[in-house]
Amino acid sequence: MIDTHIHADARSSEDFEKMFISGIDTAITCAFYPYNLMNEVVLLNHLERILNYDTERAKKYGIDLKVALGIHPSNIIKSPKIVFDKLNEYIEKKSIVAIGEIGLEDLSNEEKNIFKKQLEIADETNTNVIIHTPRKNKLEVLKEIKKIVLETIDPNLVIIDHINLNVIDEVIKEDFTLGLTVQPKKMEVDEAVAILKEYGFDNFLLNSDISNMPSDPISVPKTIRTLKKLGFDSKDIDKVAFKNAEKIFNL
Amino acid sequence: MIDTHIHADARSSEDFEKMFISGIDTAITCAFYPYNLMNEVVLLNHLERILNYDTERAKKYGIDLKVALGIHPSNIIKSPKIVFDKLNEYIEKKSIVAIGEIGLEDLSNEEKNIFKKQLEIADETNTNVIIHTPRKNKLEVLKEIKKIVLETIDPNLVIIDHINLNVIDEVIKEDFTLGLTVQPKKMEVDEAVAILKEYGFDNFLLNSDISNMPSDPISVPKTIRTLKKLGFDSKDIDKVAFKNAEKIFNL
Repeated sequence: MIDTHIHADARSSEDFEKMFISGIDTAITCAFYPYNLMNEVVLLNHLERILNYDTERAKKYGIDLKVALGIHPSNIIKSPKIVFDKLNEYIEKKSIVAIGEIGLEDLSNEEKNIFKKQLEIADETNTNVIIHTPRKNKLEVLKEIKKIVLETIDPNLVIIDHINLNVIDEVIKEDFTLGLTVQPKKMEVDEAVAILKEYGFDNFLLNSDISNMPSDPISVPKTIRTLKKLGFDSKDIDKVAFKNAEKIFNL
Repeated sequence: MIDTHIHADARSSEDFEKMFISGIDTAITCAFYPYNLMNEVVLLNHLERILNYDTERAKKYGIDLKVALGIHPSNIIKSPKIVFDKLNEYIEKKSIVAIGEIGLEDLSNEEKNIFKKQLEIADETNTNVIIHTPRKNKLEVLKEIKKIVLETIDPNLVIIDHINLNVIDEVIKEDFTLGLTVQPKKMEVDEAVAILKEYGFDNFLLNSDISNMPSDPISVPKTIRTLKKLGFDSKDIDKVAFKNAEKIFNL
């Protein structure tokens, strides 16, 4: 099973153990520093830590931790160039499976410029991007993300994450892959199941987005086991359990 | 109940909830960045994050998170002065209850200088220090810590942490407070109980040291409830449950 979006740096060894026992073999951890950054070196240190430290920590518990790195919209820095250069280096060395999570929150020009630049790097290097959509003004921000993305990058490289029933119609007809985040107080297993039942299993990924916000490290196994209990076709279940993720991330 | 040494930044909301339900009202979180620091600003960002972000996060779950900040021996930086200045500022503003965790690991001169300087700041400002002792060469390093501490600071301000049966005789006769860290694979509840039974309850604090290493967020409640089950005097139990901590940290 693959959990396609977590924040391993915010989680404990015990969580990795629970995840592994519940059937998760691989997880993709995304960049996000949970506090104001004094400068770009703090963000670089965060990225290097994820790449070199959290991957090893997860490995001890059987989890193959793949990495997505980038500048999260809550981590806007004044001199992003040093990070853009580093992203190109990571891509060249095949250290990361995607640029992420990136996206928009406040729709400021600074945020849009950094988002667009990262999409350009992804498009030029044929790299996937994992795009965050916010809690507040989700539909409004999603529309802006969709506009910028369609102007800038091949939509087949794009995963738009944290999609729910309220906003899905805005993006379902494009060639994006969509992420369903099953998370306490945001999206229950039932809503993910309802979306898959209505829209099919081909273009969706499942994830827990575990971070230091309220989380459930085994929300992906819970969703997969619920689909099984409800009698969905095992070929469909396999798509969201691991096959779609293997395909898009080339795992 | 007070858990006197944790690393809140490495732990999830769910852990705080478990701790609160198990009777923990207050915890003291210590500084430690779990990866090589590119420079001193990365450490400063870590300290500010603990102070302004993790305290708020824990509060949502009922935990009154007190803060100890300092330069951990694994976080040695080339230009520590900016952090020393900041520690003085935190102490003046009463933002922190101790300098910590500080200590020695490798016994390098750089490490000893930074350790000694922090002890001097603590002594000058009448501030407690929480001193880490390492896993490797614990007794040898503890001897060096003891030597430097006795030369530099009033031992009544000093908490020496992660003490176990192998090294306790080295420090039991001094005026230090001693920390017992009940932690998976390092010290079981039984060993903490044996130490308290043999050496009395007056000079000990209990803690879990939860971090991103294997941890148990409720190891302090487990120890306290075990002491109760074994029939120890409730006045003695209260000392290690909260009274000793309230006294030394002036809570």
